Amino acid sequence: MSDPTTDPALGSWIPVPLESGFPIQNLPYGVFRTEGATARVGVAIGNRILDLDAVAEVGLFADYVDLPWGVFAQPSLNRYLALGRATWRVVRQRVSDLLSFDNREIRDVWGLAERVLVPMPDAELLLPIHPGDYVDFYSSLEHATNMGRMFRPDAEPLLPNWRWMPVGYHGRASTVVVSGTPVVRPRGQLKLGDAPPVTGPTGALDFELEVGFVTGPANRLGQPIPVESAEEHIFGMVLVNDWSARDVQRWEYVPLGPFLGKSFATTISPWVVDLDAVVPYRVPGPAQEPEPLPYLRQGGDRNVDLALEVAVAPAGAEPYVVTRTNFSHMYWSMAQQLAHATVNGTRVAPGDLYASGTVSGPTPDSYGSMIELAWRGTKPVGFPDGSSRVYVEDGDTVIVRGWCGGDGRPRIGFGEATGTVQPAPV
Amino acid sequence: MSDPTTDPALGSWIPVPLESGFPIQNLPYGVFRTEGATARVGVAIGNRILDLDAVAEVGLFADYVDLPWGVFAQPSLNRYLALGRATWRVVRQRVSDLLSFDNREIRDVWGLAERVLVPMPDAELLLPIHPGDYVDFYSSLEHATNMGRMFRPDAEPLLPNWRWMPVGYHGRASTVVVSGTPVVRPRGQLKLGDAPPVTGPTGALDFELEVGFVTGPANRLGQPIPVESAEEHIFGMVLVNDWSARDVQRWEYVPLGPFLGKSFATTISPWVVDLDAVVPYRVPGPAQEPEPLPYLRQGGDRNVDLALEVAVAPAGAEPYVVTRTNFSHMYWSMAQQLAHATVNGTRVAPGDLYASGTVSGPTPDSYGSMIELAWRGTKPVGFPDGSSRVYVEDGDTVIVRGWCGGDGRPRIGFGEATGTVQPAPV
Repeated sequence: MSDPTTDPALGSWIPVPLESGFPIQNLPYGVFRTEGATARVGVAIGNRILDLDAVAEVGLFADYVDLPWGVFAQPSLNRYLALGRATWRVVRQRVSDLLSFDNREIRDVWGLAERVLVPMPDAELLLPIHPGDYVDFYSSLEHATNMGRMFRPDAEPLLPNWRWMPVGYHGRASTVVVSGTPVVRPRGQLKLGDAPPVTGPTGALDFELEVGFVTGPANRLGQPIPVESAEEHIFGMVLVNDWSARDVQRWEYVPLGPFLGKSFATTISPWVVDLDAVVPYRVPGPAQEPEPLPYLRQGGDRNVDLALEVAVAPAGAEPYVVTRTNFSHMYWSMAQQLAHATVNGTRVAPGDLYASGTVSGPTPDSYGSMIELAWRGTKPVGFPDGSSRVYVEDGDTVIVRGWCGGDGRPRIGFGEATGTVQPAPV
Repeated sequence: MSDPTTDPALGSWIPVPLESGFPIQNLPYGVFRTEGATARVGVAIGNRILDLDAVAEVGLFADYVDLPWGVFAQPSLNRYLALGRATWRVVRQRVSDLLSFDNREIRDVWGLAERVLVPMPDAELLLPIHPGDYVDFYSSLEHATNMGRMFRPDAEPLLPNWRWMPVGYHGRASTVVVSGTPVVRPRGQLKLGDAPPVTGPTGALDFELEVGFVTGPANRLGQPIPVESAEEHIFGMVLVNDWSARDVQRWEYVPLGPFLGKSFATTISPWVVDLDAVVPYRVPGPAQEPEPLPYLRQGGDRNVDLALEVAVAPAGAEPYVVTRTNFSHMYWSMAQQLAHATVNGTRVAPGDLYASGTVSGPTPDSYGSMIELAWRGTKPVGFPDGSSRVYVEDGDTVIVRGWCGGDGRPRIGFGEATGTVQPAPV
């Protein structure tokens, strides 16, 4: 590893519990609030948050990087995301230095550690980005194949365009919510058998295990982002639960795609993991056949070895892991997704969210949604308390987790994206 | 008319040319900039803009309404839109009074008219809203039927869900642009016959004649907006050109709907017409059969008698009107669209944009897109210069126009939504 910020030998003067996902090699960015104070940007380290606005105020960035005034005194990362990779790198290096084991710039100034470090339990974590647009892809070969097998059993499971492009659509930006936000079971039109449709609460509330990327600097309207430089426009990654109402979606989706079956909630994790933190965990993607068109052709380590799991905790019960998979399986990479999304010159803004689509692995215990795990209701998923599920029930808490490394290497935690299902309004 | 602001007998001390769409009965809102000054909110009257920030600064609102500080010194209407109908009504009444024929509050103060009124040619009109989300519906029975007849000639033209709900999808918010913004012909994947897809400029660039509404106050996440009170969340209306690349769309759209075939540009008119200004032009909508589900059931005058036309001006030539239609034909109303979009509890924010879908009338000269007017390329549209079109060509300027009244009644102009097509990047 040539990048000193990811050196596995690096330690911090702040105690980091062994199983913490936030060692000094990670340094993910979030937005938080403490009692009586306004929202600001911080970096997670162990069980603490380094308050970057406070760090800037006491002048610890001043000799290193020229930051816009108040860039960390913001309710979202958006302004920081606009600054671009060169600035992000300097800030990351400086934060790493300040926290590294032998640095005394914070420790040796009386009261300074208390001023710039916030215990996590004292902070409310807020939505880290204000997405101007939210795009959801469909880039897992296994997931797309599973859905085709279930819904079009007599046809080729993959539609003809799937291997040629990262198929995607726009989701609703206003209902991207931070982990911990309750999810109200949505009502909608349901078409049951041959009877006319009725209005009612969804009977098929599902999760979709996804990973999203968050964009940095904008492009110019009309100017595509080439796949080779796409990662210059990607700041980092979050966990995503793309909640879905399968019955609503099935009835509404022709010919214009998902709408109300998805737009009620999309949960993301509060910490955005800098792409620079996952450099040691980059891996090649699966072979792509046919060869992608030139604007989608990407060499090198396209993917990220990111372990993922979903646990469901019924009300009052312990979380039970219902699936384990890995982001490395994805057919289309983040850079390919962004190159595709902008090939028509569309405008990308700092803080946009692009989700991967459901991450399903090759085996039935690695599928990323209940509809796949329970195979459209035909194989209920048993729980330790003797109950079973084909979809998600009221009172269930769904927990998406992810991490790189941990196998002797630093564990780069992505935190959690959780949501508890509340009953539909009467 | 019980509302004095729409009284057809009302006149203004500001000269309003006979054919102006901006008489005192209209008073649409926009955002503008003059040389050396920042963006602010104004109201169109004749050939002038009443600068509402200047009106507020000189205290002319003070005795009438308690407005948040700087609400008109904004780059968008969004903050004003959050205030709601009660405030909008007071402001509209006060602006109407200030501009009405016998009012002397501005006229009799030396230099004040020059301070608060800006000649339109001196102003740059900006995008009036910053949409957090952009939704596009598909609510013209004639358009949906035409598309079905062209693309599924052997089946029922309308899909089974169409008469049960206002079908819609999320479009891209970042590329909603104001009238006058050039539109670069987008590149994308094209699938021509049986050969593998290629990347290239669209060969089927089309317009879609639409009308959009702009939302006011937010609802609470999880709380649907009932159809009866939906118009309390709708501030006003704009003209929309939902530019479409038909070849890109045809190849990409299964199963998740339109994406890059639409996301490169959506042009809206710079003036947002207050719903209160179109009250005299409300009309019943077409009969709805089957009867809508209760959450979509709306009595009264659901629709607006709004004349619409599209003209195309080839480079260097005069605009030629290619279609004339009326917004009153729409099957699903604005209130029904908003009730449907929120039945799952999704969050609406001030400044969101909801477009109607292509407005096609019942006759072939009233269709709202080139694909319909030229019937998928089989009936080229002749132009006065001897040329013909099946889609839109480089250098063409597409002009969407709309107005209520004008037939002896005040002409409530919606202005224009125009865009000139620039060649694709090489």
